[in-house]
Amino acid sequence: MSQSTFDPGEFRKALGSFATGVTVITTRAPDGTPVGLTANSFNSVSLSPPLVLWSLARSSGALDIFRGARHWAVHVLSAAQEPLSSRFARRGEDKFAELELDEGPDGIPLLRDCTARFECRNSFQYEGGDHVIFVGEVLGFERRDDAPLVFHGGRYAHATARDSGGQPRLAHLAGSFNEDFLGYLLGRSHFQFFGQLRPHLVEAGLSDEAFYVLSTLTLKPMMFASDLDTGMAEVLDESHRDAVLTLVRQGMVQTRQSAAGLAYELTDAGRDCALRLISRAKSVESDVLDRLGAADAVVLKSLLNRLLGVIDPGAAAIWESAGASSS
Amino acid sequence: MSQSTFDPGEFRKALGSFATGVTVITTRAPDGTPVGLTANSFNSVSLSPPLVLWSLARSSGALDIFRGARHWAVHVLSAAQEPLSSRFARRGEDKFAELELDEGPDGIPLLRDCTARFECRNSFQYEGGDHVIFVGEVLGFERRDDAPLVFHGGRYAHATARDSGGQPRLAHLAGSFNEDFLGYLLGRSHFQFFGQLRPHLVEAGLSDEAFYVLSTLTLKPMMFASDLDTGMAEVLDESHRDAVLTLVRQGMVQTRQSAAGLAYELTDAGRDCALRLISRAKSVESDVLDRLGAADAVVLKSLLNRLLGVIDPGAAAIWESAGASSS
Repeated sequence: MSQSTFDPGEFRKALGSFATGVTVITTRAPDGTPVGLTANSFNSVSLSPPLVLWSLARSSGALDIFRGARHWAVHVLSAAQEPLSSRFARRGEDKFAELELDEGPDGIPLLRDCTARFECRNSFQYEGGDHVIFVGEVLGFERRDDAPLVFHGGRYAHATARDSGGQPRLAHLAGSFNEDFLGYLLGRSHFQFFGQLRPHLVEAGLSDEAFYVLSTLTLKPMMFASDLDTGMAEVLDESHRDAVLTLVRQGMVQTRQSAAGLAYELTDAGRDCALRLISRAKSVESDVLDRLGAADAVVLKSLLNRLLGVIDPGAAAIWESAGASSS
Repeated sequence: MSQSTFDPGEFRKALGSFATGVTVITTRAPDGTPVGLTANSFNSVSLSPPLVLWSLARSSGALDIFRGARHWAVHVLSAAQEPLSSRFARRGEDKFAELELDEGPDGIPLLRDCTARFECRNSFQYEGGDHVIFVGEVLGFERRDDAPLVFHGGRYAHATARDSGGQPRLAHLAGSFNEDFLGYLLGRSHFQFFGQLRPHLVEAGLSDEAFYVLSTLTLKPMMFASDLDTGMAEVLDESHRDAVLTLVRQGMVQTRQSAAGLAYELTDAGRDCALRLISRAKSVESDVLDRLGAADAVVLKSLLNRLLGVIDPGAAAIWESAGASSS
């Protein structure tokens, strides 16, 4: 135990299990060149005096510049700023090209639209093995209410606030469905969301199934019946076939028999109707997402896509064929 | 800008915008008492030699103990260990009571089941304003693949890996539904999940709607028709009324007319059928959640509950009345 003979790769993984935000640290070289790099070694140290720290590899080309700088700035990146993180993590290019900048003390470059920004005096430098620990006194700062960019296990991540309640309300009711059952949550969420749209469908003379088929047909100029079958398999059972027939009868869909098989396409009336409903649906969605909050909305969609990736090969088939035809 | 005259509360908020993991740091006092505290100021410093750091308030009662200790250990907490975080963040009680512990160098107490654990020599202590920065050389460590506990903006959070793809595949298809549209994602996820259950419903002679009503009726020994109406409002439209009638005809539900109004309850046959289907459904769920991964599953459920909280007052009504009757 007293010898550090362990595997550096494993050590790196263990360190990576501690989640962090992502920052970009900037300063200006003596010749005036703006300098910046991505770091997740940032942390707060002291409130009074206000101090923060981060550490920089001794092997970094920017080490001497930061050692000699009188000031530097820390930018805490938002979830939307992953590209900035990647840009400042690379070497050799002009990292500041085409960025709109502000200026801090001594003209140090300040990035915009970050979750937080700290302008610091370069106060202390401490020995830290193959890194140098920089401690800065915060001279000024800004903050915005933005979802943060997170780094964990060597990958970027989203952070989602945990529920304060802890246990679901009905976990004690054994042998029933409850808020912890995914099937219930999905069903309820779907029906509730769809319920807000249904009055518009009724007005357009469409059943739920017909709307579902209609909106799927908007994905491609023409869709083979076999693709539609695959996409709908295990989703609407056989009922999508009836829905197609109804749509044909209503003049919204026309069939086309080609050498490659039976195909469907929307008529002008069908496309108009679909577009009108899609615009209604998007307005329902944007209202719901406002209430949920932008950060949670991004994570929810991402997780539903991931869920579909593991349970729904049919969706992949539809999207891939749609993507192929539109590229 | 050269004076730190800013509001300490605002400064704290700005610092809190940097997400962190959560750690518990432990050591043993000279009198043998185990000592531990929650800290999110941890970070890695150096790979060779392997160094980590954290900082402790000068006002902490444990400061002298950590200053004098030869060793301490850092425990990176998993998403399941929020209670440990709260326990070690409080003062005054025996924080180690009833915890199963391992022992590190000098007998320092080591907690179990953490995402990562680092046993460290107390190498350097640096000036950090109202805190002392502790730098330790890592003598040994352990790691597990667990979802991390995250702290952000003064609250606990989940971390969810970001999608590597970035943009949804069909974002370029304007005027159609795509993977970025919540209504599509919810509908598809629901139908796909439900599709795996449907063969069991067909076998039991139940329509989707009948199953939905049946499972709702498992929540309470008896449910007033008015409560069911409220719970189903905007979900199944009027069709749940037909579903109830069918269930009555099938002998799974019986009606009861009381002074307080019309009510429904499951018959023995109805309850048996519901329990059998619920157990099938839970096995479908556990298969899906295995494929999604436990960490993402927790976040997905939490977000769907939050979504229902903002779009579905009917659900709250059902759950509340169910909770009241069962407590």
